Amino acid sequence: MASQLDALFSRRRQLVEDFLAGAVRDSAVPETLARAMNYSLLAGGKRLRPVLCLTCASLCCEAEAKVLPFACALEMIHTYSLIHDDLPAMDNDDLRRGKPSNHKVFGEACALLAGDGLLTDAFACACQADVPPERLVAALAELARAAGSAGMVGGQQMDMECTGRDNVDLEHLRALHAKKTGALLRAACTCGALLAGAEESLYARIASFGQELGVAFQIVDDILDEISDPAVLGKPVHSDREQHKATYPALVGLEKSREFASEHVRLAVRALEGLAGEDARELCSLARYTLERVV
Amino acid sequence: MASQLDALFSRRRQLVEDFLAGAVRDSAVPETLARAMNYSLLAGGKRLRPVLCLTCASLCCEAEAKVLPFACALEMIHTYSLIHDDLPAMDNDDLRRGKPSNHKVFGEACALLAGDGLLTDAFACACQADVPPERLVAALAELARAAGSAGMVGGQQMDMECTGRDNVDLEHLRALHAKKTGALLRAACTCGALLAGAEESLYARIASFGQELGVAFQIVDDILDEISDPAVLGKPVHSDREQHKATYPALVGLEKSREFASEHVRLAVRALEGLAGEDARELCSLARYTLERVV
Repeated sequence: MASQLDALFSRRRQLVEDFLAGAVRDSAVPETLARAMNYSLLAGGKRLRPVLCLTCASLCCEAEAKVLPFACALEMIHTYSLIHDDLPAMDNDDLRRGKPSNHKVFGEACALLAGDGLLTDAFACACQADVPPERLVAALAELARAAGSAGMVGGQQMDMECTGRDNVDLEHLRALHAKKTGALLRAACTCGALLAGAEESLYARIASFGQELGVAFQIVDDILDEISDPAVLGKPVHSDREQHKATYPALVGLEKSREFASEHVRLAVRALEGLAGEDARELCSLARYTLERVV
Repeated sequence: MASQLDALFSRRRQLVEDFLAGAVRDSAVPETLARAMNYSLLAGGKRLRPVLCLTCASLCCEAEAKVLPFACALEMIHTYSLIHDDLPAMDNDDLRRGKPSNHKVFGEACALLAGDGLLTDAFACACQADVPPERLVAALAELARAAGSAGMVGGQQMDMECTGRDNVDLEHLRALHAKKTGALLRAACTCGALLAGAEESLYARIASFGQELGVAFQIVDDILDEISDPAVLGKPVHSDREQHKATYPALVGLEKSREFASEHVRLAVRALEGLAGEDARELCSLARYTLERVV
């Protein structure tokens, strides 16, 4: 995937990888727990959320290095959500990123705790961002709201409630996606702006960008589950259909789903219209990449 | 239990109850998830952690009202840990505080998410504390460290690893308890001091108090599991023994366990020696209460 994106993305992604490699290394963490946390945290992944955070902060004139711990906290939260979602009581998925799911390797109890540990440690990690404390508190509050019961966790609950139901409409699916995937992607962008102390109108444009990107991203996720090669995707395909989950392709078909995704990417790009510099260009190319990605 | 403690404790406990009653009320939270979160959050409990936080903040001359959201975040984190600990993959407990465990009422998936929601929302809630942001960031970092993989979550992992093992020694059990119960009780105290901007020597005394209190509390917990009436305790007794868990009574017997608990309470009280005023007196009486409690 790196080859499809540019050097700026690759450089920022590397910053994230390097930081994450040392994020769970405290000798006070029981060894098996640390291994379970690192197993999922260091399993690759696009690192889209931290890179978005770094890019938005940089767009608002904040140094990447100062924001990096916060950006990586976003990836820790994303990773915990994947571990918990894969558990037998939830989606019961055996594969993730081409490897056995966390609980298949470490057992359910340890996987549950690895998720709890990553989520909690994410906030300790985010607190290390080297920005004025009032900005940090604003970003922490935004992150927690986006990841919590009114955001990502709430979206996962809605997803569980919809599974197997036949009468889910597009409006409900939109609300579900906005929470389940959209909230954290949007927060990746807005937290970057908050950490940089962006003025209100710039914050609003970045928020709008993140919102639209989040919607497009989840529609493409649904499409990939329908059409991908499992060897490329690194997890089983058709799992949504088999679990009888509400998805865009199931509700409006593949072609219409692609149109929706394109439209949201167009809106994301438009939100940044008129902004100059490599960071704005980078965000637009990240949004467009969303449509072309294969994993 | 309120009758065994004094009016100051009861008043602070009521502040906490009132705040918690409105803590999960956002209409953006899916209804079943909100019910599951409130089911456990509003099931009573001693509210020891938030009251400790308020009392330590007040001892350091900070107004209770300004610290209250942070204090209540401690209870949200404590509650999430109970929900996850009761899950079938963990301790598989059916009763908690005299009521069916969260997953017995709402199912495993929803209980897991209710825990995730409470943990994440706790940080959003804590961010509402009305104190200078640099103090808030220091307290948030301390809270996350105490609750995370090097603290409470790590302690739970050690507990799972010890269960069924015969060769656990007292040193290992101490390390386990220090993380599993001690870290969050200590943080309840130290976060109060940090939020109040306490100077270093007062912080150190409060940290020492919280540390010793935490040890005493867990020893008494072990004793209660051994000797209590399940109707009073609100959960099954002898569950530690049945699960073949390492406990103080199992390792050193009941009498020696009681001696250890008394000694740690003595050390807790000594840490505050010479401090005047109702808050210091209150902390000492809370520590002594630890020895007399029946739930």
